[in-house]
Amino acid sequence: MALDYKESKVARILASGKTEFVGIIIPNLYMHYYAQILNEILPTYETFGYKFLVFVGDDKEDIERKYFQELLSYKIEGMIVLSHTITSKELASYDIPIVAIEREDEYICSVNSDNYMGAVQATSLLYKNGCDVLIHVNADVNERIPSYGRIQGFIDICNEHGLEHELILRDWGNTYKKNMERIAPVLDEIEEKYKNRKKGVFLSNDTLANVFLNLLVRKYGTLPGDYQIVGFDGSPISSEAIIPISTVGQQIDKIAYQAMELLVMQMNEKKKRRPVPLETPIHKVVTPILIRRETTK
Amino acid sequence: MALDYKESKVARILASGKTEFVGIIIPNLYMHYYAQILNEILPTYETFGYKFLVFVGDDKEDIERKYFQELLSYKIEGMIVLSHTITSKELASYDIPIVAIEREDEYICSVNSDNYMGAVQATSLLYKNGCDVLIHVNADVNERIPSYGRIQGFIDICNEHGLEHELILRDWGNTYKKNMERIAPVLDEIEEKYKNRKKGVFLSNDTLANVFLNLLVRKYGTLPGDYQIVGFDGSPISSEAIIPISTVGQQIDKIAYQAMELLVMQMNEKKKRRPVPLETPIHKVVTPILIRRETTK
Repeated sequence: MALDYKESKVARILASGKTEFVGIIIPNLYMHYYAQILNEILPTYETFGYKFLVFVGDDKEDIERKYFQELLSYKIEGMIVLSHTITSKELASYDIPIVAIEREDEYICSVNSDNYMGAVQATSLLYKNGCDVLIHVNADVNERIPSYGRIQGFIDICNEHGLEHELILRDWGNTYKKNMERIAPVLDEIEEKYKNRKKGVFLSNDTLANVFLNLLVRKYGTLPGDYQIVGFDGSPISSEAIIPISTVGQQIDKIAYQAMELLVMQMNEKKKRRPVPLETPIHKVVTPILIRRETTK
Repeated sequence: MALDYKESKVARILASGKTEFVGIIIPNLYMHYYAQILNEILPTYETFGYKFLVFVGDDKEDIERKYFQELLSYKIEGMIVLSHTITSKELASYDIPIVAIEREDEYICSVNSDNYMGAVQATSLLYKNGCDVLIHVNADVNERIPSYGRIQGFIDICNEHGLEHELILRDWGNTYKKNMERIAPVLDEIEEKYKNRKKGVFLSNDTLANVFLNLLVRKYGTLPGDYQIVGFDGSPISSEAIIPISTVGQQIDKIAYQAMELLVMQMNEKKKRRPVPLETPIHKVVTPILIRRETTK
């Protein structure tokens, strides 16, 4: 009896093409942002019934492509892609419903945080709190990647208010140790260059913000009054830091749910007798929420 | 051509019963330990070729059971189970190769950290560093769960050396905020009770250790000389804390790989014409490594 059921399920896939499988490709699960996204996508099984084949790409383009091809051969119904390795043009050519999250998305549907508005909120807070020089710490992000909005939002608000500002765009490394080694000299530069100024520092993620805060607290025993700090993401480290860090909180639950909705919509269309493909990809944005804590008082 | 390949893959499943799918059930991905385990298991695709259907159970027993049944109907070949909801007796009855990680495992194969040896290392370090009262902070763990070894190891070393010691076993909550609220009064108790004593505090995970450290640093501006702290897990927070925390580092890469090896062995046996079931479940342990940092100087 149980066995019959099993046989019929596979047979049904053959007949209908509906496996109820969705593939997810993630760069890694070391970064908390990705783990949180996955933590929100997987329980949508309760709502939509889809089961998820999850793969960690680790920036290995060839292996990701092989995995993709294999999933397609298993007749999965759709894909959610967070990794950056394969271009959206190639992904679009696979002819399967796809939603991208926080990656280059020119030819495919996507859901992203409103990075620009997040940066506007963070920068405006530092300005309103009386900082007279603003500093943005980020990687040298390509303009086609959604998170570039963080740089643009920072620049626009600084220019709008005629604020003195500096962009520090470098490769900070992928480990805490490297972050530390590379941020430490930046703190020395800032201390020297902007002595006696009220410094507002907006960092592109909470991990970097925590590194910057730790360096200051180790030096002064507390956060000195001439510093204000804002991170980005709303990840656990922002609240678990020695002084709770103000941050731009991503609404990860909404991003995950909207990604699934957008995917289900495409998968349902595809199952119709005469599916009508989208004329242009749909790009959704989710506004992040500024979380004010003790580093911006 | 591509289509033919797809058809043949599903047809091949029907004929051979080899889907090359493995299911993973995890309690959540919020806790970094689970994200790390998954981060190590998924890339074994490169070695073994298995693809992973991942589910987050969130302690909902009924939904986990439903998910299990559904996976079985898709003819998955094996399961890795980290969630605690379904007993190993029930899991064994599903008649599919299973490996448990860090959960009750009486009737199924498992891979666990050697929690006992981890606690022995942590407690011995505090003793050797001259602490004259030892405190272990943990949940009130059931003796049948592998992590109970952390309590037993602590007690045994204290008794061996005739050390004054205290067990503080409570529910600390699942969020940082609750951890904070519940650990704060414990610090007050310890301060009062063991004034002028050299206190060695061994906490059952790095998140709790970071909370305890933050409370001390906020009160004294640094870690006072009459405290030594050791956490457990080796998770990022232990190195990202305001003072890098000594911890018992789990060898998560080894745990994940050995779990897959143990599963592949069972799955290969099952594919033989006359599979010989295991007489008793195999339980493997992986020894954790003590990481000495600045909270035990």
